[in-house]
Amino acid sequence: MVCSIVGLGLMGGSFGLAMRDYFDKIIGIDHNVKHCEDALKLGLVDEIDDFKAIEKSDVVILAIPIKGIIKALNEISKLNIKKDLAVIDFGSTKESIINSCPQNIRKNLVAAHPMAGTEYSGPQAAIADLYKNKVMVLCNIEDSGEIQRKKAIDICNRLQMHIKYMDAKEHDRHAAFISHMPHIVSFSIANAVLKQEDKEHIVALAAGGFRDMSRLAKSNPHMWRDIFSENKQNLLDSIEAFKSELKKAKDMIENEKWDELEEWMKTGNNLHKIM
Amino acid sequence: MVCSIVGLGLMGGSFGLAMRDYFDKIIGIDHNVKHCEDALKLGLVDEIDDFKAIEKSDVVILAIPIKGIIKALNEISKLNIKKDLAVIDFGSTKESIINSCPQNIRKNLVAAHPMAGTEYSGPQAAIADLYKNKVMVLCNIEDSGEIQRKKAIDICNRLQMHIKYMDAKEHDRHAAFISHMPHIVSFSIANAVLKQEDKEHIVALAAGGFRDMSRLAKSNPHMWRDIFSENKQNLLDSIEAFKSELKKAKDMIENEKWDELEEWMKTGNNLHKIM
Repeated sequence: MVCSIVGLGLMGGSFGLAMRDYFDKIIGIDHNVKHCEDALKLGLVDEIDDFKAIEKSDVVILAIPIKGIIKALNEISKLNIKKDLAVIDFGSTKESIINSCPQNIRKNLVAAHPMAGTEYSGPQAAIADLYKNKVMVLCNIEDSGEIQRKKAIDICNRLQMHIKYMDAKEHDRHAAFISHMPHIVSFSIANAVLKQEDKEHIVALAAGGFRDMSRLAKSNPHMWRDIFSENKQNLLDSIEAFKSELKKAKDMIENEKWDELEEWMKTGNNLHKIM
Repeated sequence: MVCSIVGLGLMGGSFGLAMRDYFDKIIGIDHNVKHCEDALKLGLVDEIDDFKAIEKSDVVILAIPIKGIIKALNEISKLNIKKDLAVIDFGSTKESIINSCPQNIRKNLVAAHPMAGTEYSGPQAAIADLYKNKVMVLCNIEDSGEIQRKKAIDICNRLQMHIKYMDAKEHDRHAAFISHMPHIVSFSIANAVLKQEDKEHIVALAAGGFRDMSRLAKSNPHMWRDIFSENKQNLLDSIEAFKSELKKAKDMIENEKWDELEEWMKTGNNLHKIM
């Protein structure tokens, strides 16, 4: 089987690295010439080609921002693709992608979201075990063709991922809570500290806890604006839910309700019983 | 030199583990009988004794909650201690501890805050390299005796810690931003997710980012209520600073000001240039 990877950053590059032995050939496709050169040099793909190479592919991975995925699906719908081609998109929100997929290739599309990543980006950030033991969400799988479904599942198994099936709407709401809102929170912490007059002294004290809480604020702003705009309403809802807990805590601190605050924290401890 | 450690949890236990070879004897002191047994079994201390053992000690480490430290200092002030005794407290806030230290032992006290820890607690959580390469803040060091100062610095060097000298007031404000507010934020994220009807499905998607952001919500509520109450005003100020950034982000999302949001995120990226 021939696989094309569109987008040779962290996600696409790591996929190539992990799947080199699985496919007969992996073709890299990226507008960014430097990324193409790096991907070849780092052995993430076998060769570089243009978008037309999708016509000779059995699997296409779309590992680019959401708006790019939507555009790519439109272009693919006009190509002379193999009937059994599986187009697997790795977009972080799913509803808008599925809704804008041209009908003639809807069965080719498998809408996926690998719950994996690091705060780094580009081909240099690719790591072979990025996907291992992580969750892969497959959305509205009943609308994908049977062969495409099977290809996607085989690939997930090879990556040693745990598959979760989910409705796209439900996925987008969950993703807001588990990923998008926490990113906004982390950026807010970073910006709050940076606004302080003595920011260097504050940061000098940073231990593990602060590093964890500010790590997501290293993320790529250009990529995340897309995710936030595609998932606007769910994101606002999850920020609202977070804000309401924060307000509760603040009120208890202000009014010195320490017993209540301790109970609230004990409730928070429970998260790790279900995680 | 004989060292007593009051409080055989994560902090006190890890100190014992790291410093067994440095002192001639390490005495463990703890109200909790189980902690005493575990500390002996795990080799964190040489022997267990009662509070009176401080009279034969050259160094005392107070690795207990803030209110306990304040009480312990009062009791120590009534003991027949060695003139050169160094009492090093590991409290997470410093102003209230320093202000309530009895004058007759003020020169004995070295007010310290090791910027180290994990989300776990108890003697079982002790690790030998907890302090290694971490920052140790020493507050208002000019009010400690010269011999006590020297003892504390020698100990920090042996632990391979980086010493930062700071005014207690300044420390407490910085600690609110770097540690206390992020704890409140993490507990707020945990509670917001737990309130959702489909919390199990949400959590099933958790990847590294969410694990980082919710890790502090594993922390011990009883210990943290003390820290929050001792540092109330700074904590409220830092929550306010955080909230104002969160509000800014929320407004930009609501009004679809994606360019501005991207700029705001780029500013947040800068944190890691100074960290």
